Amino acid sequence: MTESKLIYLDNNATTKVDEKVVEAMMPYFSQYYGNPSSMYDLGGKNSKAVKEAREQIKDFFGANSSKEIFFTASGSESANMAIRGILSADRTRNHLITTKVEHACVLNLHKQLEKEGYKVTYIGVNSAGELNLDELYNAINDKTALVSCMYANNETGTIFPVEEIAQKVKSIDSKIKMFVDGVQAAGKIKLDVKNTQIDMMGISGHKFHAPKGIGALYVKSSTLITPLVIGGHQENGKRAGTENVPFIIGMAKAAELAQDSLNYESTEVKRLRDKLETGLLSKIYNARLNSCSNKRVPNTTNIGFEYVEGELILLNMNDYGICASSGSACTSGSLDPSHVLKAMGVPFTALHGSIRFSLSRYTTEDEIDYTLAKMPLIMDKLTKISPFQKELNDLKERKGII
Amino acid sequence: MTESKLIYLDNNATTKVDEKVVEAMMPYFSQYYGNPSSMYDLGGKNSKAVKEAREQIKDFFGANSSKEIFFTASGSESANMAIRGILSADRTRNHLITTKVEHACVLNLHKQLEKEGYKVTYIGVNSAGELNLDELYNAINDKTALVSCMYANNETGTIFPVEEIAQKVKSIDSKIKMFVDGVQAAGKIKLDVKNTQIDMMGISGHKFHAPKGIGALYVKSSTLITPLVIGGHQENGKRAGTENVPFIIGMAKAAELAQDSLNYESTEVKRLRDKLETGLLSKIYNARLNSCSNKRVPNTTNIGFEYVEGELILLNMNDYGICASSGSACTSGSLDPSHVLKAMGVPFTALHGSIRFSLSRYTTEDEIDYTLAKMPLIMDKLTKISPFQKELNDLKERKGII
Repeated sequence: MTESKLIYLDNNATTKVDEKVVEAMMPYFSQYYGNPSSMYDLGGKNSKAVKEAREQIKDFFGANSSKEIFFTASGSESANMAIRGILSADRTRNHLITTKVEHACVLNLHKQLEKEGYKVTYIGVNSAGELNLDELYNAINDKTALVSCMYANNETGTIFPVEEIAQKVKSIDSKIKMFVDGVQAAGKIKLDVKNTQIDMMGISGHKFHAPKGIGALYVKSSTLITPLVIGGHQENGKRAGTENVPFIIGMAKAAELAQDSLNYESTEVKRLRDKLETGLLSKIYNARLNSCSNKRVPNTTNIGFEYVEGELILLNMNDYGICASSGSACTSGSLDPSHVLKAMGVPFTALHGSIRFSLSRYTTEDEIDYTLAKMPLIMDKLTKISPFQKELNDLKERKGII
Repeated sequence: MTESKLIYLDNNATTKVDEKVVEAMMPYFSQYYGNPSSMYDLGGKNSKAVKEAREQIKDFFGANSSKEIFFTASGSESANMAIRGILSADRTRNHLITTKVEHACVLNLHKQLEKEGYKVTYIGVNSAGELNLDELYNAINDKTALVSCMYANNETGTIFPVEEIAQKVKSIDSKIKMFVDGVQAAGKIKLDVKNTQIDMMGISGHKFHAPKGIGALYVKSSTLITPLVIGGHQENGKRAGTENVPFIIGMAKAAELAQDSLNYESTEVKRLRDKLETGLLSKIYNARLNSCSNKRVPNTTNIGFEYVEGELILLNMNDYGICASSGSACTSGSLDPSHVLKAMGVPFTALHGSIRFSLSRYTTEDEIDYTLAKMPLIMDKLTKISPFQKELNDLKERKGII
């Protein structure tokens, strides 16, 4: 990477902190540093600032009351707090439903819960990445405690009909709770929890231009959970630890900015994403679209480059200063192909060479043009050294290139 | 509080973030914002920075290996992760020992564990705030899984002999684990875990001039714990969630600065604390020293003002711009007197009017002189309106004032 060139197309992994967010946080480090629980003015000022931020995050969720908002340190903590919290509050049921394509924080927690005696049904997806809804509804039994489903998939961007699922699940058995991992939806599409039957939803600040290390959990006021971190009275006794005042302020500011640019996301970011997607598919013969659902967040595309290795692609992209990823950052370090793409039945030939491109409101047309200019060069190089020359030739023939 | 005057003597509640810490963090918000788990250079740079920070925090703990260091979001999370983690990893024992004067995160967690079936012995302290060691050792039985004890008390500053306790406990039964809440010791006295038999120690960044929202947990390499937050591979699979890169960098810088000023703490901060303590006790006839142990962190004094109300004192101090606290910030919001002072047997007459003054390396001689000038004025006013006139007169007589 030359320092001068940085094309950041990995916004589903993490985002640049908006300068306005940094600006909003700054006074809370060395100037207004009081403990919000303190009696004096320096603490009271922070307590008030946190209260205002909670109102803003309430609006971001589309919740009824700021009492339904709890600040956490991450999307992972939000999910663990929600799922553990609901199960500890009522131990009468032992069956859980989730999907095969959840983020590691939900998936691995469910694997742990199985070890602790819970039964878990993992719902599959079709080749477009869409959830098998009938499979989900049919899995419900009289021991089902909780359905956990992501709002949008981090790798493909596919949006799941979580509002519809919540309604249907509750109509089958009103005692079943529903947790939604909203991490990849927040800041990309409008949230509106108050008009749904969703009980809990988690978000993560660093996915919408707040810093890493701050998240939030919405818990509908009628829903009882036990705390994951026990101790002081903070967060209404549901999450102990001195409030991360600067990041709470920062996330509220980021939410406000994200709210203001939702329209830009669904028009301009989507236009650039579509341009990138269409361009890659037309310019590169071994490219295939992994996430073909039309219900997708506007910033994400997942392209499989057949017969080449994902890591090699990423390293070559890195040489051009282009950042993207294969699979999710949270499951990296493993050489296994993406569990999401596997669940979708993406063919073996494309599974290892799949790349997720995720844009943001900072992505420019120039950056997309640059990427569209460089990716064919990379693929030209990599297909030439691929051990699958016969297969690549067959592919060319099928596409009528040779 | 006039904006111009701020005498901050509540550093055990939270601290001002050191400007050098802010400076160290700044590039990691909007410039080096990559996900440390990513393959490209922007992520790799952060991964390297986190690795270096982990080394620094290892040195701060005096640990053997950076693999023994886990980043968390708070001292409370560190304690919950350690205690829950050790108990989940080995469920063969069901007895816990802790003290009556622990921070809420340890105390309330133990109360919850009692509800879950654990037996807990709470060890008392003497009037100087010192732990009844024999009581602790005698409480050990063949079901004892864990001893949890703070390094220094947040309200009195009393240092507990945690190294000695660990050694003795292990000599009685080597299978018993020991967790130390080091939150109020870190940055005030030198930590040296590698030369102790302590299994786990938690610290919190915002107590030593790092921001609120970051902590760390030391876990000796031979000690097995399960994660509290399950999900991605971060923190060696022990704590999921994208790393809070800026605050990790910030806490490492704060640790380095704290390390460098340990000598200043034990000389100059101690001198100012002693000046404040001696001055208050000599100038105010209804003042008594609650924390008379000579084993104390250098920055803390806890003074009981007899026959006056703590909240009234704090409000009057606030009018002069002086920040201090009664009890700990994490238990504020409750009108109950401090559980620590109650355990010490502080008389009822002083219990409600006890104030903790906690200094830092930023505290100046002028600030102490100012506080020593204003506190007698406040006490003069408050004793005059106290409903305990007879008792105050008796006190004066006993002290030979009238």
